[in-house]
Amino acid sequence: MEQVNIALAGFGTVGTGLARIMHENGEWIRRRLGKELVIRRVLVRNPEKERSFVLGPETEITADLDSFLLAQDTDIVVELIGGIETPLRIVTGALRAGKHVVTANKALLAEKGPELFRLASELQRGLYYEASVAGGIPIVQTLKESLAGNRIRHITGILNGTANSILSDMTNNGMDYAAALGQAQRNGYAEADPTMDVEGIDAAHKLILLIRLAYGQDFPLARMGIKGISGVDPYDIELARAFGYRIKLLAIVKEHSGRLQAGVFPYLVGEDHILARVDGPFNSILLEGNGVGPIMLYGQGAGDLPTGSAVLSDIMALASGKPPNNTGFVEAVLPEASTLEPELTTTRHYFRFTALDRPGVLAAIAGVLGERSISIAQVVQKQHPVGRGVPVVFLTHTAQVRDVEAALSQINGFSFVLSPAVHYRIL
Amino acid sequence: MEQVNIALAGFGTVGTGLARIMHENGEWIRRRLGKELVIRRVLVRNPEKERSFVLGPETEITADLDSFLLAQDTDIVVELIGGIETPLRIVTGALRAGKHVVTANKALLAEKGPELFRLASELQRGLYYEASVAGGIPIVQTLKESLAGNRIRHITGILNGTANSILSDMTNNGMDYAAALGQAQRNGYAEADPTMDVEGIDAAHKLILLIRLAYGQDFPLARMGIKGISGVDPYDIELARAFGYRIKLLAIVKEHSGRLQAGVFPYLVGEDHILARVDGPFNSILLEGNGVGPIMLYGQGAGDLPTGSAVLSDIMALASGKPPNNTGFVEAVLPEASTLEPELTTTRHYFRFTALDRPGVLAAIAGVLGERSISIAQVVQKQHPVGRGVPVVFLTHTAQVRDVEAALSQINGFSFVLSPAVHYRIL
Repeated sequence: MEQVNIALAGFGTVGTGLARIMHENGEWIRRRLGKELVIRRVLVRNPEKERSFVLGPETEITADLDSFLLAQDTDIVVELIGGIETPLRIVTGALRAGKHVVTANKALLAEKGPELFRLASELQRGLYYEASVAGGIPIVQTLKESLAGNRIRHITGILNGTANSILSDMTNNGMDYAAALGQAQRNGYAEADPTMDVEGIDAAHKLILLIRLAYGQDFPLARMGIKGISGVDPYDIELARAFGYRIKLLAIVKEHSGRLQAGVFPYLVGEDHILARVDGPFNSILLEGNGVGPIMLYGQGAGDLPTGSAVLSDIMALASGKPPNNTGFVEAVLPEASTLEPELTTTRHYFRFTALDRPGVLAAIAGVLGERSISIAQVVQKQHPVGRGVPVVFLTHTAQVRDVEAALSQINGFSFVLSPAVHYRIL
Repeated sequence: MEQVNIALAGFGTVGTGLARIMHENGEWIRRRLGKELVIRRVLVRNPEKERSFVLGPETEITADLDSFLLAQDTDIVVELIGGIETPLRIVTGALRAGKHVVTANKALLAEKGPELFRLASELQRGLYYEASVAGGIPIVQTLKESLAGNRIRHITGILNGTANSILSDMTNNGMDYAAALGQAQRNGYAEADPTMDVEGIDAAHKLILLIRLAYGQDFPLARMGIKGISGVDPYDIELARAFGYRIKLLAIVKEHSGRLQAGVFPYLVGEDHILARVDGPFNSILLEGNGVGPIMLYGQGAGDLPTGSAVLSDIMALASGKPPNNTGFVEAVLPEASTLEPELTTTRHYFRFTALDRPGVLAAIAGVLGERSISIAQVVQKQHPVGRGVPVVFLTHTAQVRDVEAALSQINGFSFVLSPAVHYRIL
């Protein structure tokens, strides 16, 4: 039986998960593929370190990058190292050495995608990345092939399992942010430095990859509105629940007459909405195509085996001998996105003001909102003061972010307002 | 630009939807594919009939099957005619004439799949069928490629939009079965003769296709337990809701140490379960792989554009020039499934008995259940009699279907039991 040789750069969580699935399902994979997949070599920092999965004698364990990349008998290089610099060397080196490449590295592809896809195309090699978005959920393949004939109207995704598990714990178990983050770290969902996950950057990287696949355009990170969840106050989670909403970190892209609007924000999501039920480390992607209509995919967004499963699907696709399809478009180099300014976004909004309990406060706030054409859907002034102030919550009808920011800045300047307005978007 | 010529057999709902998407997204498809898709000919019974979508001058409309099949310049034949006999002639004729084939016909593939896949393999042609299961949801591609490296533990699907919309109307709008069926017919979700949909046969056909893709085995329809929804009483929907359940028609396959158990039954689904929220004509498939863990896909199970989108994805895959992958396995001919007898299924159960209101009734029923090792989780005896009888509802712990059937048959024989027990499985 024909043998396809794999070389893994990195043998941490995902690499171990991949090796486990390949070992456990080896016979099954041969039945699917008609070929034998072999982990021929593994690149690690310390080849002597003891590991939870013991590789067989067919696998060479090395710390030498050059010999790893140039080995003649490797067919597919799998890049599973975090960061940008070393992975960039590995991916370009492997492509130049004539190998196909599989990577789970969304930061690398978000930042260096254009040059890497150009190189892969010039060399006619595959550069596959199913595992880079939403773990085991096959969203890359779905956008690249199954929905390729659709124009995508929007994508709305819970793309970061760490942030989602923190928000779930705050919502369902009454934890505050610090406790929920600690819990996520203990569960292995959050890293020691959780910045990329909790500040929305990881979700933004993934959204950039989804925008490429869905729209064939390169959306610059700098033009994306991004806000994370580290500032989410349990009090707003509680108030949102009382109004029938859950707070979720959503990555959203929408097309408006040929221009794209994209961002990552914590949103209030109606509790009957299908995304409101996605809890814990799960991911979910809801999208709408002009043919298929609404579609949702749901599954584990991270973890050794789910991510390993996604890496394996890329390996099998490349090993099957199909001509590689990296971007989902004939062009290897995609045009830069035609974007709509983030401040022109229109959506519904949630505001919480903390004001002194004195006559005229509500009228003054409502007056500013009215001047900016921000129409109020619901107001609740809480009877019980919090500290010196009284919380006043507004839910608005659809309003433009530019108007909202101007109004909030004006309201924050009032002497009776005790702390800056809390502001969330509503899905 | 290279041109790929399509021939459509049938130009009803799905054919029109396909033509609409191809027309609207033509430029987009060229950007994805680098080729131009042309509907070169259409086979219809009456070429003179006026149609809601006007085909261009490049399309030849014909009623002559032989000339349709043998046209030299067709690359891909799309079979969109219902039934078995004519579609079988079209699919085999097209394959023999060297064309690739796309079909949305689950009945054809469930019944004649083995011989058709053998023929396609001998002739090295593609036989693609994304649209045959769950409309626009890309479940065929997902099982065939994205999850190909996974062993699938179970598939649990809402695969029939007609049955689901009837049950949704009965549950959410208080309709009885006849009214909900009439509503579904008026909405275009149900055909004039709804037998295939409401009796679970259509869902069983789709389940057979999913079993092939997930397990590489041919599961004979005759060995599948099948029960539809035409007998569902609104009273049980109401009682189920009071217990926290919704009634859904589910198609389920599970693997137990290498043997498959598959069936289609109305189930009580806990209202917090992700499938309980799938309402109306939507479909959803929940499955679990040994790598990916649980995954769910959700979308429209029928309709002109969603189904047209699925057909288009097959056309684009075949037009891209990839070597066809029909079954997802190296073998073109799959072995017959190793099955587990349906009566050995273990699951939780719901029983409703209608009994005379006299002492000892509950004890007698509970006694029979106990003798058969059916352990009771909950019992409710309703105070208000229905006609002469009093309803008694049991929810059991896990019990084997064989024991349940024996117990129910014994209980139905009691003189105080006024009508045969109503029985549902609980997910």
